[in-house]
Amino acid sequence: MAEEQEARLTAAGNEMSASFLAARKRSEETLKKLEENPGKFTMLTGDRPTGRLHLGHFFGSIRERVAMQDRGVNTNIIIADYQVITDRDTTEHIDDNVLNLVLDYMAAGIDPEKTMIFTHSAIPAENQLMLPFLSLVTEAELHRNPTVKSEMESSGHALTGLLLTYPVHQACDILFCKANVVPIGKDNLPHVEITRTIARRFNERYAKKHPIFPEPAAILSDAPEIPGLDGRKMSKSYGNSIMLGATAEETAKLIKKSPTDSERTITFDPEHRPQVSALLTTAGLVTGRDPQDIADEIGASGAGALKQYVTESVNAFLAPHRERRAELAQDMDTIRDILHEGNRRANAIANETLDEVREAMGMRYDR
Amino acid sequence: MAEEQEARLTAAGNEMSASFLAARKRSEETLKKLEENPGKFTMLTGDRPTGRLHLGHFFGSIRERVAMQDRGVNTNIIIADYQVITDRDTTEHIDDNVLNLVLDYMAAGIDPEKTMIFTHSAIPAENQLMLPFLSLVTEAELHRNPTVKSEMESSGHALTGLLLTYPVHQACDILFCKANVVPIGKDNLPHVEITRTIARRFNERYAKKHPIFPEPAAILSDAPEIPGLDGRKMSKSYGNSIMLGATAEETAKLIKKSPTDSERTITFDPEHRPQVSALLTTAGLVTGRDPQDIADEIGASGAGALKQYVTESVNAFLAPHRERRAELAQDMDTIRDILHEGNRRANAIANETLDEVREAMGMRYDR
Repeated sequence: MAEEQEARLTAAGNEMSASFLAARKRSEETLKKLEENPGKFTMLTGDRPTGRLHLGHFFGSIRERVAMQDRGVNTNIIIADYQVITDRDTTEHIDDNVLNLVLDYMAAGIDPEKTMIFTHSAIPAENQLMLPFLSLVTEAELHRNPTVKSEMESSGHALTGLLLTYPVHQACDILFCKANVVPIGKDNLPHVEITRTIARRFNERYAKKHPIFPEPAAILSDAPEIPGLDGRKMSKSYGNSIMLGATAEETAKLIKKSPTDSERTITFDPEHRPQVSALLTTAGLVTGRDPQDIADEIGASGAGALKQYVTESVNAFLAPHRERRAELAQDMDTIRDILHEGNRRANAIANETLDEVREAMGMRYDR
Repeated sequence: MAEEQEARLTAAGNEMSASFLAARKRSEETLKKLEENPGKFTMLTGDRPTGRLHLGHFFGSIRERVAMQDRGVNTNIIIADYQVITDRDTTEHIDDNVLNLVLDYMAAGIDPEKTMIFTHSAIPAENQLMLPFLSLVTEAELHRNPTVKSEMESSGHALTGLLLTYPVHQACDILFCKANVVPIGKDNLPHVEITRTIARRFNERYAKKHPIFPEPAAILSDAPEIPGLDGRKMSKSYGNSIMLGATAEETAKLIKKSPTDSERTITFDPEHRPQVSALLTTAGLVTGRDPQDIADEIGASGAGALKQYVTESVNAFLAPHRERRAELAQDMDTIRDILHEGNRRANAIANETLDEVREAMGMRYDR
């Protein structure tokens, strides 16, 4: 599941572990099968509504979701609103954040006729799966999750019961709609692993003859990590991200004030010149050009010329998105309706899955 | 909340702590107010459907529930079916256990017109409260719960995510129907304390102007601990409990094979003669007599005479209950209907409470 980048830190060096290698192999095999037969795949992905989407989200996940949808994969996007309170004490601005996510999805090409967009807080039967699923994992397994640990540390907040157990809640998100593919960055691999464990254990204990849940495969994103304009990680608190929904003027101002270095000639050197190189990377992404070529072209014209090029190319790239976005924002009732319809569909699916789960567990006493 | 006695061990010596004394004071004050104005109180109590009810449950909780109901308290009985899997890997016989609980409630005088009987697995909106509530407690607070620890140890099962978090689920059980009184044994005081904490924090964070949840008071049971027939704790595995639904013959057989000691003369001496004294306590409870008087009466007639007296008095006491039970068991469809109706009512209440919660948290995007 794609997550807000600032809140999701890298899990300590487990990239080359056996389980990572196995997951990467599974990811490659799944992608191949998915390309051959997209209609057999159900994908679940989503975002925490803690802020607006930026260029990093666009290239890191949104673009891929649209491609999956258009390819014919059964695509589901969850707005994980309860994840907002895993590490904070307020839901301030959540309504605004949720509706703006839907706006950006739509502007980016998500078609609500094909893709189900919903908030998990609106799907009680999905949330009920927390109960049986929590019984299938031990507290020790919850504690072993490296992503939960690093998130807790980065939040500076005490570990809440919800942060400890949210990987189980993600399993509910993924399994209620029987998703069999989950596109993620490698930091979130432990969450898909726990989902696979939960699916397997549920089937073994309660549904041996007719397994209810698939064991979903992670599709590991090969999208490059996109730096913020200042070369650091994109973060709301750094103010270094280009928001999809910002105006061209706001974008120009943000790029103008982004720091560079004292060397006049522009070169692409991410290690020694992270700030200039971040600007080049950004321009490269939105133009489809090699950052090296852009650097050569600008050369001695310096940072001012580079920033002008970045501003023009980013604004040109985002212009159609922003135009569609502004148009859609004229009619927020339709945006609400889209969410309403997504929630209605998600509820129908969740109710059906919960019925199966209760049946398998022998918990249908009142018929 | 009354729990199966065998699974719920005594929390390590916290009886005289400051919080226990405060809870006892609150319990006494609440009981006084409840006697004056029962209609202002909503009570939540219940059982884990892990087996049949026995005489210990009858005197420990069932009798009190009927009294509360008849006094005019808004009485709610939850069959906590997800609690079955906190410390076991199967839901075997759960259907049978649930329906037999309803049978015993009804036979004991619970009136489903006055008392709502329901299973929490049938109330999705109630279970959804787990998500916001888990965000209101820290993992450290979950771990500090002495009852969870002792339950885990006694189960011989790894600590599951569900056992760790079930006090939060009990808070959902209690708060979804806005219960303000919860009758419990002192071992379960920590659960009511965490419910009070959750109610308070929710109101503070999300509903300052119009608090949604009451802070429920525990009503501490003053029912004596009723020993099993052999003087040990009543336990299914010891086979030392008189089941409410057993036949008179089964009961006679059970009492006949219960161990006594080599001393002929019957005396009431719980410390030195636990087995004989357990029989006397049992006879005392069902006849309303002082066990000491019964011992004096039987005296040199010995254990055979004592067992005969216990058998006769227990069977006489339970005869009306068993007769009603057998009659009700003729029509299990009606029992299912009662549960169905209780679940329907509980769903209506839970949906309303969840709407309030989502509204307070700003999570109503699709209207």
